[in-house]
Amino acid sequence: MGGLTVYGALHQHLPRERFVYLGDTARVPYGTKSLSTVERYAVENARFLEARGIKLLVVACNTVSALALPAIRKALKIDVMGVIEPGARAAVQASHESSNKRIGVIATESTVQSGAYTKEISRIGPEALVIERACPLFVPLAEEGWAETDVASAVAQIYLDDFGSHNIQTLVLGCTHYPILKRVIRQTIGEQVRLIDSGEAAAGEIKSLLESRGLARAARQAGAHEHHLCDDQDNFYVTDAADRFARVAERFLGSKLAHLEAVEI
Amino acid sequence: MGGLTVYGALHQHLPRERFVYLGDTARVPYGTKSLSTVERYAVENARFLEARGIKLLVVACNTVSALALPAIRKALKIDVMGVIEPGARAAVQASHESSNKRIGVIATESTVQSGAYTKEISRIGPEALVIERACPLFVPLAEEGWAETDVASAVAQIYLDDFGSHNIQTLVLGCTHYPILKRVIRQTIGEQVRLIDSGEAAAGEIKSLLESRGLARAARQAGAHEHHLCDDQDNFYVTDAADRFARVAERFLGSKLAHLEAVEI
Repeated sequence: MGGLTVYGALHQHLPRERFVYLGDTARVPYGTKSLSTVERYAVENARFLEARGIKLLVVACNTVSALALPAIRKALKIDVMGVIEPGARAAVQASHESSNKRIGVIATESTVQSGAYTKEISRIGPEALVIERACPLFVPLAEEGWAETDVASAVAQIYLDDFGSHNIQTLVLGCTHYPILKRVIRQTIGEQVRLIDSGEAAAGEIKSLLESRGLARAARQAGAHEHHLCDDQDNFYVTDAADRFARVAERFLGSKLAHLEAVEI
Repeated sequence: MGGLTVYGALHQHLPRERFVYLGDTARVPYGTKSLSTVERYAVENARFLEARGIKLLVVACNTVSALALPAIRKALKIDVMGVIEPGARAAVQASHESSNKRIGVIATESTVQSGAYTKEISRIGPEALVIERACPLFVPLAEEGWAETDVASAVAQIYLDDFGSHNIQTLVLGCTHYPILKRVIRQTIGEQVRLIDSGEAAAGEIKSLLESRGLARAARQAGAHEHHLCDDQDNFYVTDAADRFARVAERFLGSKLAHLEAVEI
């Protein structure tokens, strides 16, 4: 459940697996909501997907991963994987390969307020210095399809300005919308900074997890297209406004969704 | 229930009245939601306020007014007033005083898709030509406090560009967040265009309605401050994240809220 960029990364890393995706479009964005509300909505969403017979739940949203992972794990019987821990691990690893241990994190207001990235990065790499910054306009910019405009550059300049003076070498894209803005972020912050896509990092770890537990799927059914960005056998559910979601999804994934259904949660 | 700019206008036009305000912060923004979801949420919110003993409900949100007014009126026993009809009426009146009958409307995606302004303006002034345009980035810009930045100017340029070539003389600010951006909108579209604030228009009509029905309040209780932008005797409810709301409210109204409470709906 969550961001489509994570679905894209999962589909690419795990072409044999089938996915059931849920986007809670009726109640997004979560990035400005409180802990108790995010927990309540996230558990409802998680139960919806568990009831569809999934073997693993990927919480493909940084805000929900930051705020509601314990509540979801308590409510579900299956494995639950978030994006914060993999993102933090990838960032610490990248910082080990760079000239300093300064790690920047950009995310929604709620994720930054939770301090989840700082906690997780400090746990994995206590020598790291973490600087977090909320970038509320990045989500609407990505959804509007303005990633490649001068407006996106101007907004990125304002949000990323401080990171330059702190001389950070690693920057975590701590919201699943932000990879859409990767080009402008890279251009603004400079080529020398390593960008960490928490969804990509999670996809890599999920692959290992499935293999180590013997949960990985052995083969594809006939008719599956492994090389598309989006799969004909995958199911997409949204809680509202399926038309708008289909438009945004096509922009994000570069192809149309075969099975998209609106449900009430 | 809805936008704080409308509360500000109501408080100014009706200094003797007391207000009970509800902001559904857990589930905003409504501007990208579907008809059935907006109806469901709006009726829940309306019932919450009716249960607090109000004499009139102001639907201070263009999206809810555009989509859910019939559903709310059916569910409630008291008078219900939206912002679309007053906004449309004020726009037609302004267009009568201008050199042409072209009226522009800027609003959320859902309001534009509903066609509510075009329908209402055409009913009141059949000779008017209405051009509607969704401006999804205006709401996050206003909430981020970036109304006076170059980014706001650049975004306004893109959204308002078409209106220039259509030579419109009247522009409806069809979202209660947009008055926050009035200065940059005026600068971009030009001084010759009359800007219609639907919340202001509604406040004027509500004053007349209360007086004509004998519902207007005669006097204030002791201790009330009539000249503040926000009143000590008014009650504010939000469905989530009261801290964030208090910050945004102070930015919008220029003063702190005395009574703010988070409730679950």
